[in-house]
Amino acid sequence: MAYELYYWPMIQGRGEFVRLALAEAGANYVDVARRGRNGVPKMQKLMEGRRLATPPFAPPFLKDGNLVVSHVANILLFLGDRHGLAPKTQAGRLTLHGLQLTITDFVSEVHDTHHPLGPTLYYEDQRAAAKRRTDEFWKLRVPKYLGYFERLLKRNGPFVTGRKLTYVDLSLFQLVEGLRYAFPKRMKRFEKRIPLLLDLRERVAARPRIKTYLASDKRIAFNEYGIFRRYKGLDR
Amino acid sequence: MAYELYYWPMIQGRGEFVRLALAEAGANYVDVARRGRNGVPKMQKLMEGRRLATPPFAPPFLKDGNLVVSHVANILLFLGDRHGLAPKTQAGRLTLHGLQLTITDFVSEVHDTHHPLGPTLYYEDQRAAAKRRTDEFWKLRVPKYLGYFERLLKRNGPFVTGRKLTYVDLSLFQLVEGLRYAFPKRMKRFEKRIPLLLDLRERVAARPRIKTYLASDKRIAFNEYGIFRRYKGLDR
Repeated sequence: MAYELYYWPMIQGRGEFVRLALAEAGANYVDVARRGRNGVPKMQKLMEGRRLATPPFAPPFLKDGNLVVSHVANILLFLGDRHGLAPKTQAGRLTLHGLQLTITDFVSEVHDTHHPLGPTLYYEDQRAAAKRRTDEFWKLRVPKYLGYFERLLKRNGPFVTGRKLTYVDLSLFQLVEGLRYAFPKRMKRFEKRIPLLLDLRERVAARPRIKTYLASDKRIAFNEYGIFRRYKGLDR
Repeated sequence: MAYELYYWPMIQGRGEFVRLALAEAGANYVDVARRGRNGVPKMQKLMEGRRLATPPFAPPFLKDGNLVVSHVANILLFLGDRHGLAPKTQAGRLTLHGLQLTITDFVSEVHDTHHPLGPTLYYEDQRAAAKRRTDEFWKLRVPKYLGYFERLLKRNGPFVTGRKLTYVDLSLFQLVEGLRYAFPKRMKRFEKRIPLLLDLRERVAARPRIKTYLASDKRIAFNEYGIFRRYKGLDR
């Protein structure tokens, strides 16, 4: 039976980290909210209705028969075991999950660059604050996070935890893509500091299933409703 | 052999969610950075040195022999299995982990109330932004997150996933404690909307091992260096 992925239909957003893993796994799945006009109501009914004892707080979530898994890192923990995108040992699995949770934190900080005063206000109402937060983000946070992963690649490469590709490598590909989209000028200057991450990005993009996925209409284009948003005022 | 918990010695912070689980489990552990003056350098050496192929990005992390587990939710996933603080079925474990990851997101939003312009600037340099973010937080985010857990308690109670206490119940106790500390006025007004969470807080506080832990000097007092900070300008 096919997996059902529940996520907002118009954006890559957090769901994209899951879509990339499903693509690399060659897994059969339905992107529920993107299929037909009833997709989003169906998603909301699962979250708000009484069918599940413990409904998810927010999308994305993945349904596999009666099993419902919510939060990106949790879904990847589940898919990693199922589809050989994670080590088999307990230590390896937990280490990898920790790396993905670091990516979760980074993604949250990316979102805060355009919404420092909260996710419920418009960007247009928090431009000055967004500018300050974005400056700090590029000055201190991007070097800290990406520097960490660059060091892991240097130590463990060719992939972040060693010889085999994992779901974390796919997520790192997405981080590079997203930063290039949202902050083309800032990222261009920064890239000389992360040669190994850029090389990883190339190798992930060239994998047959990822290449096919990226060229398909399953890959939604970046836009200003997702995590990575291109606002002129924040790039320089 | 005793677990080694690595976390900043002067604050409850994110480490407190782990300490509460260790206390309830009756687990033998050393709070490394709080023991002696070499604790913090030892922690930093593990993160920056070459001993681990994949060192943690940040504390807290838990060491069990050669196994190192980082990020609160990941540590609780590990401890939950070991010490009967989580269901035994795969579905139950993944659902519970999803709930903890929702708490992770909420904790991150709590931190953003006093640091909306980024974790690297002082609160004093972002007071106006903090005020705006805190207003939004209490208007929309607290009701959304705590309302969600209140509904789960109503549906599944007496604990959040049913008849047995889990690590998520312990974390919910800490959220109530933290909000009461940081925002006494706002929280007092809000509490009438979460009777079941307050009742859960009482039951957790009364558990023998938790009661002993809270009365011991292992429980660090709340202060203005952790996640939950009491700033007059943000409470009203």
